[in-house]
Amino acid sequence: MSDKQSITPILDKVTGPSVLKKFSIDELNRLAAEIRGVLIETVSITGGHLAPNLGVVELTLALHTVFDCPKDKIIWDVGHQSYIHKIITGRREKFSTLRQHMGLSGFPKRAESECDSFDTGHSSTSISAALGLALARDLKKEKNNIIAVIGDGAMTGGMAFEALNHAGHLGTNLIVVLNDNEMSIAENVGALAGYLSRMRTDPKYYKQKHEMELLLKKIPAIGSTVVKAVERIKDSFKYLVVPGMLFEELGFTYLGPINGHDINLTRTILERAKNSRGPVLVHVITHKGKGYKPAEKYPDKFHGIGPFNIQSGRTKSSNKPTYTEIFGKTLCELASANEKVLAITAAMPTGTGLTSFGEKFPSRFFDVGIAEQHAVTMAAGLAVSGFTPVVAIYSTFLQRAYDQIIHDVAIQNLHVVFAIDRAGLVGDDGETHQGVFDISYMRHIPNMVLMAPKDENELAHMLKMAIDYDGPIALRYPRGAGIGVSLEETPEPLKLGKSETIKKGSDITIAAVGPLVYDALEAASILKNKGINAEVINIRFVKPLDEESLLESVRRTGSILTLEEHVLDGGFGSAVMEMLNRHGVNINVKRLGLPDEFISHGSILEIREKYGLTVDNIVAEITQMVSGSVKPKSARKPKINLATQS
Amino acid sequence: MSDKQSITPILDKVTGPSVLKKFSIDELNRLAAEIRGVLIETVSITGGHLAPNLGVVELTLALHTVFDCPKDKIIWDVGHQSYIHKIITGRREKFSTLRQHMGLSGFPKRAESECDSFDTGHSSTSISAALGLALARDLKKEKNNIIAVIGDGAMTGGMAFEALNHAGHLGTNLIVVLNDNEMSIAENVGALAGYLSRMRTDPKYYKQKHEMELLLKKIPAIGSTVVKAVERIKDSFKYLVVPGMLFEELGFTYLGPINGHDINLTRTILERAKNSRGPVLVHVITHKGKGYKPAEKYPDKFHGIGPFNIQSGRTKSSNKPTYTEIFGKTLCELASANEKVLAITAAMPTGTGLTSFGEKFPSRFFDVGIAEQHAVTMAAGLAVSGFTPVVAIYSTFLQRAYDQIIHDVAIQNLHVVFAIDRAGLVGDDGETHQGVFDISYMRHIPNMVLMAPKDENELAHMLKMAIDYDGPIALRYPRGAGIGVSLEETPEPLKLGKSETIKKGSDITIAAVGPLVYDALEAASILKNKGINAEVINIRFVKPLDEESLLESVRRTGSILTLEEHVLDGGFGSAVMEMLNRHGVNINVKRLGLPDEFISHGSILEIREKYGLTVDNIVAEITQMVSGSVKPKSARKPKINLATQS
Repeated sequence: MSDKQSITPILDKVTGPSVLKKFSIDELNRLAAEIRGVLIETVSITGGHLAPNLGVVELTLALHTVFDCPKDKIIWDVGHQSYIHKIITGRREKFSTLRQHMGLSGFPKRAESECDSFDTGHSSTSISAALGLALARDLKKEKNNIIAVIGDGAMTGGMAFEALNHAGHLGTNLIVVLNDNEMSIAENVGALAGYLSRMRTDPKYYKQKHEMELLLKKIPAIGSTVVKAVERIKDSFKYLVVPGMLFEELGFTYLGPINGHDINLTRTILERAKNSRGPVLVHVITHKGKGYKPAEKYPDKFHGIGPFNIQSGRTKSSNKPTYTEIFGKTLCELASANEKVLAITAAMPTGTGLTSFGEKFPSRFFDVGIAEQHAVTMAAGLAVSGFTPVVAIYSTFLQRAYDQIIHDVAIQNLHVVFAIDRAGLVGDDGETHQGVFDISYMRHIPNMVLMAPKDENELAHMLKMAIDYDGPIALRYPRGAGIGVSLEETPEPLKLGKSETIKKGSDITIAAVGPLVYDALEAASILKNKGINAEVINIRFVKPLDEESLLESVRRTGSILTLEEHVLDGGFGSAVMEMLNRHGVNINVKRLGLPDEFISHGSILEIREKYGLTVDNIVAEITQMVSGSVKPKSARKPKINLATQS
Repeated sequence: MSDKQSITPILDKVTGPSVLKKFSIDELNRLAAEIRGVLIETVSITGGHLAPNLGVVELTLALHTVFDCPKDKIIWDVGHQSYIHKIITGRREKFSTLRQHMGLSGFPKRAESECDSFDTGHSSTSISAALGLALARDLKKEKNNIIAVIGDGAMTGGMAFEALNHAGHLGTNLIVVLNDNEMSIAENVGALAGYLSRMRTDPKYYKQKHEMELLLKKIPAIGSTVVKAVERIKDSFKYLVVPGMLFEELGFTYLGPINGHDINLTRTILERAKNSRGPVLVHVITHKGKGYKPAEKYPDKFHGIGPFNIQSGRTKSSNKPTYTEIFGKTLCELASANEKVLAITAAMPTGTGLTSFGEKFPSRFFDVGIAEQHAVTMAAGLAVSGFTPVVAIYSTFLQRAYDQIIHDVAIQNLHVVFAIDRAGLVGDDGETHQGVFDISYMRHIPNMVLMAPKDENELAHMLKMAIDYDGPIALRYPRGAGIGVSLEETPEPLKLGKSETIKKGSDITIAAVGPLVYDALEAASILKNKGINAEVINIRFVKPLDEESLLESVRRTGSILTLEEHVLDGGFGSAVMEMLNRHGVNINVKRLGLPDEFISHGSILEIREKYGLTVDNIVAEITQMVSGSVKPKSARKPKINLATQS
């Protein structure tokens, strides 16, 4: 009997979250162990956010034994820690398709399950969303529980504070589970982290309340003044010794801190939260990577990871360096020669390639926490004082600082360098993480310069140029490995607004942004065999455009194909059309890029294939454009309408 | 002698801020009174932010007697309270040009004075900028003081918390003056406000520290356990009774609260802050509108006000209702009929016309504080639960929530209505407040619908349509008075993506966004006299465009002029070009709008004149476009290139 039990996984019994309520603590602990096995095995094949999920196995089980999904609503901040939740809410079978094209998303998706209450992906949104759900519940006079699960890192994001402040004011029932693993992705920064750490480690915080209450009872009443004063101490005592007073001051009842790997204890405190009135903050301590040695040792590496070997913990490495690595390396070189150069990251020192910068130049490196808005405005303050801050943020996260880029940097025309990493398709993280809007949201900002390197070598040159420039300047570069070109020893600055014509041609101009230049070249070489002679321009500067070269080229070729890994609306192709329009040039323009829809997860190659961002499709489009006009080559004339400049 | 003194204003002696240091307290108080006179007199003519400035007269004088500008840096959060600072830092003579075209800006501008350390305009940026300046100072091994002056309202903005959290962690010298006037623009909301209010009013907070220390000394040592325990109480005492523990927990030394109209006291506490190490928060209580009865009584009305009569406090009123008023009125009507309709403001109930909504439907109205990010994501949470939140935010402030619009609303395709007030030119507030980017930052967002009404009557119809729709939908409308058209009794929903052809024509198509439709009509009527027959289309939907009508029109007229009060880069004209390009239609397109530069302050009419957004210029451009091709009317043929759809 017990033999049989040990063979049949208890996970098989979990047909839905309600089943968990019948399990004993032993069974839940066995289940936790099994789920860890599934997580490690699956993510070793698919890649994904392993360490965050290993940290919340018990917490997730405890949540689902105390609350009733889908009636009760759990909102996972960031959402990359929702794998266990997915497994126990009917998605175990599909779990092997995690982050694959057409498979399960790596983030909560309402479209996947009614147990997913709100889609997440970016940090610090959960309390705002949860408050919306709670207010809606109140308006409908319903009674369910709303729970936001948020990490200590995400808690440093400004909008989490905005939501705490509002929720504490309104006083409606709402549970915030602070999943404190002493780090967001890298080690946590900020005074809040220090505060939480004092609560975790300072015995004053842990034991004082109980001890003090005993003590106060012992103090003899020696006079009415003293008695009254003692009463007053008792009265205000909660402000003193209750840990979490910071949250209490904001109107939350604070419970904790407790060990989040103790299922029983976690259940008990969640029950208490459920039975409390008003907003409650439950402080749970967990360990990122728990139960898998390599992830416990390197939680940063195993935060988000590609496929890896379970025994060794090693990932497959590429021979080619990534854009991120070249950025970090070049920035260190440039910073050695120029002490004005500073680097700023928003909780992504490794992700943005700044780890060694931080080691080499600790006083010139600033990790501000998950706080993109503050990062950009602080950079403006440094720039006003004569320094050259380089702010490295992923394209999708820089959306958070759109207003600060306009208002604090561009209006004052300050020299801040934006290193926009993960620009273009990011693949398996899906719609919340694609970096496909930055050209549209950056290029209409006055004073802004926007560049995109065709390869990792050009990235180095552009970074040099950005640092020598004086004004707001951004460079966007993709996720992952570079082209594999050799690197020149010393980066030379490029000329502002000057493109590079890589291949001369007479039949059509191809203007491409970033590494798509190489696809354009490949397409041009195929087209040559078909008798079509395409000119290939590496645009380099999306803003300001190289008007002179582009006009000269299209006046010869009579048509242009633009290429960008970016939405077409407001993108690079539109910038080219605007420029042609300003000059009164009416020619045949074809824009290749991404359509007006959100791009879900899958490999970058699959997505490119789906949307026609391939060499084959470039060839097909150009063949149609050129042959579609007039067949015989001799008869082909530029379809040009050279109106006067308007 | 004393007679003469009373005639010669003491303000005349203020040739620069350093002069103030020699003044006695009496002289400073006299100066304060004189400055109030100048403020009231000037703003009664120019309009401006009166109440916030009246509240900080003494605080500004105290700051300039303690610190040395420009060596020490004062950063004014939001910046509309910097008038006194301007007057005493060499701009008294120019003060009468406040907010006028080519005159003084209503906000700090580095270009105006070396005493303006950082340009501000939007809320909650000052601590981030100040920290940047402080870190730069440390890197340069300099010793000056950096002071951020921030209101209690601005303190609720998330990025202020991000900056506090980071500054508290770093521990460098930095002074934050919390100017607590119990309101931002309207009455303050949020738990932080409650916290500050407790500090202001609760005698526990004021007196406890001193009393408790005395008491603890009195408690007799009755045994070693108790003694140790008492020691422990003393030890942790600072956490209990020091007001401002919330800030202390974040690593700041808290000083205050004090009366900010007492110059001597304010100076004393600022001196203490100056001599402290590490980050310091000085809590100063002031009264908005202080010293001018109407502004004390109606600080909200006198926050930002047009020219007014000093005796009565009355402003000149227009006969035409504003777009904002029609929005508020219509929303109330629609909400009466549909209980799912909710309204959300970010600390601007009056500015966005929601005051009566809040009175009529208190449980369905949410003022979230200066927290645009939270406002949008909370709206998403409400929408997920089946409600229809209408989020009313100025175009320029909605920039703060760009990421939340994409990430929390549009990806989930949620029915949130964005009422984008102050879209287009706003005039005298200048570059930080112009609403000229929203088309560019909204229209590339998948699932988004973007409308603009031609007048206040159409605004009502669009709002009805937005509420009946199901998905993310935005309407942009201008600041100020409407056209003055009569209002239909019942707003009828418009058809999604359908434009309105107001005037048929054969020679050119004019497609206009918003009230520019009326300018287009006027231009068309002038053109008619010149023998040019223009078709005028009220586009209504910037997204999705009415492709059918536009294509049909331009196929007849052969050319199009687009009109928008918005930057041209990525704007409406670009959307039209993209659409024509998708359909392979190559015609003559002229786009009128704003150039790629920041638009400084001045009247809206002056700015329109400067950038050619006038009827005269529309006429001139069209005359050139039409006559520029082929002169005789009979010979004019559409310059059309109807390629096949690509």
